Amino acid sequence: MFQKIAILGAGLIGASILRTAHARKLAKNLVAWSPSEASRKFCLSQPWCDGVATDPAAAAEDADLVIACTPVDTIAPVLAAAAPSLKTGALVTDVGSAKLAIHQALQDVIPPRAVYIGSHPMAGSEKAGPGHSSDTLFQDRMCFVTPASNSSNGLAVRTLTGFWLDLGMRVVEVPPETHDAIVANNSHLPHLVAAALANVMLRHPAQWGSLAGMGLRDTTRVAAGSPLLWSGIVSQNRGEILRALAELQEELGEVSRAIQANDPKSLGAFLAKAQAWRSAL
Amino acid sequence: MFQKIAILGAGLIGASILRTAHARKLAKNLVAWSPSEASRKFCLSQPWCDGVATDPAAAAEDADLVIACTPVDTIAPVLAAAAPSLKTGALVTDVGSAKLAIHQALQDVIPPRAVYIGSHPMAGSEKAGPGHSSDTLFQDRMCFVTPASNSSNGLAVRTLTGFWLDLGMRVVEVPPETHDAIVANNSHLPHLVAAALANVMLRHPAQWGSLAGMGLRDTTRVAAGSPLLWSGIVSQNRGEILRALAELQEELGEVSRAIQANDPKSLGAFLAKAQAWRSAL
Repeated sequence: MFQKIAILGAGLIGASILRTAHARKLAKNLVAWSPSEASRKFCLSQPWCDGVATDPAAAAEDADLVIACTPVDTIAPVLAAAAPSLKTGALVTDVGSAKLAIHQALQDVIPPRAVYIGSHPMAGSEKAGPGHSSDTLFQDRMCFVTPASNSSNGLAVRTLTGFWLDLGMRVVEVPPETHDAIVANNSHLPHLVAAALANVMLRHPAQWGSLAGMGLRDTTRVAAGSPLLWSGIVSQNRGEILRALAELQEELGEVSRAIQANDPKSLGAFLAKAQAWRSAL
Repeated sequence: MFQKIAILGAGLIGASILRTAHARKLAKNLVAWSPSEASRKFCLSQPWCDGVATDPAAAAEDADLVIACTPVDTIAPVLAAAAPSLKTGALVTDVGSAKLAIHQALQDVIPPRAVYIGSHPMAGSEKAGPGHSSDTLFQDRMCFVTPASNSSNGLAVRTLTGFWLDLGMRVVEVPPETHDAIVANNSHLPHLVAAALANVMLRHPAQWGSLAGMGLRDTTRVAAGSPLLWSGIVSQNRGEILRALAELQEELGEVSRAIQANDPKSLGAFLAKAQAWRSAL
């Protein structure tokens, strides 16, 4: 059990961590910082929040575990603000969806008395804010833990892994570079594809969307996510995402050529490969 | 109420029509033809099937309503086989996902004593066969009714529309050309995109799929559909699908350029347009 966990950024993810940690009795003291007064008031009124702070440093004081849960492009600045008050031995992590850029930005920010290891719990919703938080959001979902390739703090990695396991997640440990390549393909690419499909629909009469079956709804669901949040994520993983987009355009080029050439064998093979993969998922 | 409805092709859709028509008492006599002996036996053992036939012509005899429910590329041959026994005034339709090619193929096939009007109920499943049929498959789903632009058989259109309404569907009437343009964008394109995403995942370690969140699962769900069925659908709507694929490639090119140029304003605008569309869907 932790003495104190500090959550920096009490949105959907941050508040869900507080809720779940409270329900599972993972800390004596659960404290949140949020830049929003409304979010601070909301959290303080809840049984799963023991206190709120008006700046990141005050929240992080004396904390064993500090978790930055703000949008990816503000994680490094928020942790820089918290850094001066980190206690000796403090474990610092974040929940950002791209990891290498954050690892690099934090290299000179986290003082040697503390240890930073990245995390990425793969859970979320199109709905934002602590009001939509839940203590089942993480249940059975996957969480990446991403120690830098050159680090060797095995104890801190085990502690952090144990924390996410205690929240109900499954955990996989990979270096930040590998994490970014994986999520570029299995998360960021699907998001951009869903948005591109939505933008194709916008070229046509609005009625065409309402005349769709479940296929279009499912294929575009993630496009309803926050543009601000996703623009930040994409900006922090540009290289890997551009590679993934190029691969997708190759695949679309291949199927376009098969259709153009009226080549049912190639078209069938393209669809059969995909069908086998999706059925096994 | 119809005296006799004949279903040609007793798969998921055909058997679901029988089930629902039986539950809602839409016909005195519900008869099915299937090329599969196992499907014929299964149907005959069910309370919602009054008889089976071993050829399309025998099933269609005396039927007021004949519905071809085979894969799109066999609809015209199956109706050609049924044509000689169509009674005067018989209403003939099908459930194919592409309409213009079928309309054209049937022009010299359906005798003047009968009337053909296309249908496309937007309902289905990755699961095939009469064993997965259900009397709720069509509930509140959209159905296209596609009279040829040069036809003016208002009574037959109203009868066919009424039939799909009686099955619980919402109905929209458009010419076959318009239907094909709409579904190329809102159904066939999402399917090909889901398959392309699956094939990108296949270029990488299998673990990358299992490390995905719900986004990848939803975005690729339809790729689990039958390659044979979909290859047939795509082949019958090539022109419109190639146009839709080109539009998608343009959108992907636009977002790639914004990411390449590290242009958060363009990227944000791309995502915000999509988000607004999807949230309103």
